[in-house]
Amino acid sequence: MCRQTKEISMRCSRRAVLAAIIVFGLSANTFAQSGPLPSWNDSPVKTSIIDFVHRTTTQGSLDFVVPEQRIAVFDNDGTLWTEQPYYFQLAFAFDQIKTMAPKHPEWKNKQPFKGLIEDDLKSALATGQRELEQVLAVTHAGMTTDEFARSVITWTQTAKHPRFQRPYTALVYQPMLELLSYLRANGFKTFVVSGGGVEFMRPWMEKAYSIPPEQIVGSSGVVKFEVGKEGRPQLIKTAKIEFIDDGSGKPVGINRFIGRKPIFAFGNSDGDLQMLQWTMAGEGPHFAGLVHHTDAEREYAYDRQSRIGKLDKALDEAASKNWAVIDMKKDWTTIFPQTR
Amino acid sequence: MCRQTKEISMRCSRRAVLAAIIVFGLSANTFAQSGPLPSWNDSPVKTSIIDFVHRTTTQGSLDFVVPEQRIAVFDNDGTLWTEQPYYFQLAFAFDQIKTMAPKHPEWKNKQPFKGLIEDDLKSALATGQRELEQVLAVTHAGMTTDEFARSVITWTQTAKHPRFQRPYTALVYQPMLELLSYLRANGFKTFVVSGGGVEFMRPWMEKAYSIPPEQIVGSSGVVKFEVGKEGRPQLIKTAKIEFIDDGSGKPVGINRFIGRKPIFAFGNSDGDLQMLQWTMAGEGPHFAGLVHHTDAEREYAYDRQSRIGKLDKALDEAASKNWAVIDMKKDWTTIFPQTR
Repeated sequence: MCRQTKEISMRCSRRAVLAAIIVFGLSANTFAQSGPLPSWNDSPVKTSIIDFVHRTTTQGSLDFVVPEQRIAVFDNDGTLWTEQPYYFQLAFAFDQIKTMAPKHPEWKNKQPFKGLIEDDLKSALATGQRELEQVLAVTHAGMTTDEFARSVITWTQTAKHPRFQRPYTALVYQPMLELLSYLRANGFKTFVVSGGGVEFMRPWMEKAYSIPPEQIVGSSGVVKFEVGKEGRPQLIKTAKIEFIDDGSGKPVGINRFIGRKPIFAFGNSDGDLQMLQWTMAGEGPHFAGLVHHTDAEREYAYDRQSRIGKLDKALDEAASKNWAVIDMKKDWTTIFPQTR
Repeated sequence: MCRQTKEISMRCSRRAVLAAIIVFGLSANTFAQSGPLPSWNDSPVKTSIIDFVHRTTTQGSLDFVVPEQRIAVFDNDGTLWTEQPYYFQLAFAFDQIKTMAPKHPEWKNKQPFKGLIEDDLKSALATGQRELEQVLAVTHAGMTTDEFARSVITWTQTAKHPRFQRPYTALVYQPMLELLSYLRANGFKTFVVSGGGVEFMRPWMEKAYSIPPEQIVGSSGVVKFEVGKEGRPQLIKTAKIEFIDDGSGKPVGINRFIGRKPIFAFGNSDGDLQMLQWTMAGEGPHFAGLVHHTDAEREYAYDRQSRIGKLDKALDEAASKNWAVIDMKKDWTTIFPQTR
């Protein structure tokens, strides 16, 4: 009998829920799902994530993991934000050429600069690898780290994606923002481990993902310390590549920057395969997931044949090892945040 | 008039304290000093540290710094623990040679191995730089990162310092432990930025300093990812040097690993000079300090002429720029923790 005071009524309803769990065999996780990850449809992937978090964070659970070991790593391009029609760092470089053009009259008749300035991307991209490396060099080197960071910030505030006509930082995935936040709420420390340049990512990621610079691992160029003209110490970015945080470089980068094996990892391409393997090689519980781009309408659809974000070997390994694979079209109710 | 209820008596006493501040010109900081840093004698250095923390963490203060920017960096050898008679990582390498000797009969008649095995350090050290690099190579490379970490842990649990006859990890400085802890209690994030090998430091620093692996920046060798015989992914340490986190490498390492300019830095040698310069180059408030080894009785006394931990240029710069210089003998009541 439930008497009608508020407190008792709450107890009764709790009892009713517990009874339902026993009678219908529902687990506590079923109920938990209605809370976190609101932009995720109920699906085995969502259930497996919530179940993993529940198991690893419940005191007394056989799979309990102490908070300091709850390291979660995420690829960026194609996993946390869009990477089509080409990596956004390349879009930044192309846009920078236009910004810098007035001070470089010699670019007017020289490819690939000419093409980039005239929005003739086809001609620009028709030049060789070496010419494109020049574009990266002039836009990413020969300046202080502070100057470069400022140019990245300006770009994120002004540039717009050609198809979606919104700032690039508004093309982050709402469901992944929810996942990052859900993990942090459960004592996980979230890291980005990306092939992108670390200096390109740090200026905007704290705001976009709530991930601080010291938890961002990426590729890097050699940086030199010098004392400038007015006795002011500064760091100069050079064009020499130092470290490529991609493929087998990802576990190396994780080891170097984080120094612990992650227990949770998400990627979307073959460049993430070794990071996922490394995560799954740990003792104790671990979780690997892939974002599979299946939604040409709301975002893009690509996998085994794609020039950017190729997902082939990792898709096979995910199938054979039972890793979680997100079907973007089916699993996500929303792709991008409503307003940014 | 103070009536004798408890509450009123507390108010009265608070009023008395406030009156004393006004009358005698005491600042709130004077009162704060009796609390933190108990192993520090009252001195201008201690006052300047407490004043800095107070200014940067008090809401409404002109020097207030938001928590995410409160980055504090510390050199390790000679700043957080002893570095004499030679860097402890070298002591580890020498001890490892003895541990590994039974499996290397060829070392019996070959210097510097022979000398190290027979505790004849003089003969061992008389060999050239290249031979000593061999010692580092065989003790630090050709194994997985996990195997190396285990060997470091075993060493910290068994080896003893020749003079103090205690484990090396018991030769950390009690006053610096208090400083790390005081900073963290005030919302600072503490990092180690050391010339020591990052893989050598990470296994024991979390316990010794409460600093997690991901907040430890150091020198590193090239590490390779491979999938081992049983399909198990692993990272293999090679003998190739990748990055030396010393001198002008320190601001480079800080930029690469932390991605923000510190506002608080401590070192003890010329190898820390550029890190201190970089910290002091930041906008807003910043603090640089040096540990000056002046206590031959309780620890060691050395500076300008020392082969290890040479402190010459940085001492001059500290004097000219008014950086804090700790006089170990005068400023610290205790050097090492009582029991570890």
